[in-house]
Amino acid sequence: MSTEQQQTIDAFLRQSPFPLDADVEELRRLLHAATSAQPLPPGVKAVPTSLGGVPVVEVTVDGVEPRHVVVYFHGGVYLLGDALGSAGLAAQVGGRTDAKAYSVEYRLAPEHPYPAAVDDALAVYEALLADGVGPSDIVFSGESAGGGLVVATLVNARDHGLPLPAAAFVMSPYVDLTLSGASIDTKEAADPLFSRELLEPLVAGYTAGQDPALGLISPVFADLSGLPPLLIQVGSHEILLDDAVTLAARAAAADVEVTLDVTPGVPHVFQAYGPILDEAGAALDRAGQFLAARLRA
Amino acid sequence: MSTEQQQTIDAFLRQSPFPLDADVEELRRLLHAATSAQPLPPGVKAVPTSLGGVPVVEVTVDGVEPRHVVVYFHGGVYLLGDALGSAGLAAQVGGRTDAKAYSVEYRLAPEHPYPAAVDDALAVYEALLADGVGPSDIVFSGESAGGGLVVATLVNARDHGLPLPAAAFVMSPYVDLTLSGASIDTKEAADPLFSRELLEPLVAGYTAGQDPALGLISPVFADLSGLPPLLIQVGSHEILLDDAVTLAARAAAADVEVTLDVTPGVPHVFQAYGPILDEAGAALDRAGQFLAARLRA
Repeated sequence: MSTEQQQTIDAFLRQSPFPLDADVEELRRLLHAATSAQPLPPGVKAVPTSLGGVPVVEVTVDGVEPRHVVVYFHGGVYLLGDALGSAGLAAQVGGRTDAKAYSVEYRLAPEHPYPAAVDDALAVYEALLADGVGPSDIVFSGESAGGGLVVATLVNARDHGLPLPAAAFVMSPYVDLTLSGASIDTKEAADPLFSRELLEPLVAGYTAGQDPALGLISPVFADLSGLPPLLIQVGSHEILLDDAVTLAARAAAADVEVTLDVTPGVPHVFQAYGPILDEAGAALDRAGQFLAARLRA
Repeated sequence: MSTEQQQTIDAFLRQSPFPLDADVEELRRLLHAATSAQPLPPGVKAVPTSLGGVPVVEVTVDGVEPRHVVVYFHGGVYLLGDALGSAGLAAQVGGRTDAKAYSVEYRLAPEHPYPAAVDDALAVYEALLADGVGPSDIVFSGESAGGGLVVATLVNARDHGLPLPAAAFVMSPYVDLTLSGASIDTKEAADPLFSRELLEPLVAGYTAGQDPALGLISPVFADLSGLPPLLIQVGSHEILLDDAVTLAARAAAADVEVTLDVTPGVPHVFQAYGPILDEAGAALDRAGQFLAARLRA
């Protein structure tokens, strides 16, 4: 939509890149500073609680009568980020689907490598089902590594014989920790945020000696059959573009209902720039339509 | 949606396959019999006329005030099919976008091999522009080979320095005449209509000695930069699934706004089975929303 808005965000992100020599603590501090600089919008409430023994933040939006539940997973390459930092995005999804959202405080690597995050995600979903929430009233959503955790948890839930949620919506999913996508290199100049040089050293913190091609670590390599309808949004200015494209291709090959929705000229998780980027709200509106059409009426 | 509907259509298509030993005349007769068996819906008018010296069928829908124009290209591997046979699909698109449609009677191979179809398509678009129709009031649409012609014509129009239409919508596009997609083989058992054995001998009728990897023959190999927003719909039960997936991937890599919309369990150009398949109308409704949002308000 607005080239000027896109350029402003691009310049802003390039001004304050993640330093390549930073350790995890420094990266956590930088990401926290970035997300906490954006206060929650008025009318959004974020209350800490827990589900299945896992801490979560319950996110509600004034004026939205919650008839459904969004299980939301934040991003941060499985090393960074927190549930509150993504509460704003979780509220954007919940507010468009007549839902409350639970933003999940899954355990982070390297202190808690794979499969800690995957286990926590499944525990939250199992607790919701045990509480009597119908799977057809639940959607999964998440951004970046949280998008990967969405897909891994769908695969994991299917393999545990659980009923699956009505649909899932992932933004710029990080679903190939082998970093095999061509866009890792072809989009490096266009991506204002990430590079192979930045990501590659961070992979081992999560995999901790496991094969990064395991299906629950890199769900592009998992059997995706039987998954519920899946909406994948991605910007064309990101090195993770092919994560999204390959996920869509693999889901389609496995007879999954899947929509890949590519917005040109915008960076990783562009939906987070709602107040200053027209494409953000437009994409979230499309996501809301997709999810609402698949939740129980 | 309905597994029963999907199975009915699958069984119907398998009952009357295209014979592998048929010549082009026989294939034309069979396709014509199939499409003319479905009369135009009530309220749809199809009137022969011409644009830029190319025969077209003007398709209007009672009660729709045409404020926009759909340029529609029928399918049939560039050898078969006709403008009237796809008038019903053209009306489905036009009726959802406040548009009249022109279904284009482009010349067919082998009598008129590449680039005859591409030339005719461009001539129609140039004539519309010359008539004063604004490009922002035009969308391109087409099914199967017609979807390929949509993308080839966008590339061709861009290379001729023409302003481009507001958006394009392709159904099960045939965009890789090298038949390099993995789905050509992996989806053969699931596809009730097509096989490599059927398609492969038909390619040369259109290419007539030209390289099938030429961008205007197989637009997955073309430079797609600068193209308008593109909606690609495809069923998961078709050997051309990867044509759609690869087109989306290439468009995304070229910073094109693109949506890939995969419906599981349905065959090639499933949108044509509207009266007996719920997925058809649902997909066409999504296409209408996509196009209407991008046409001039």
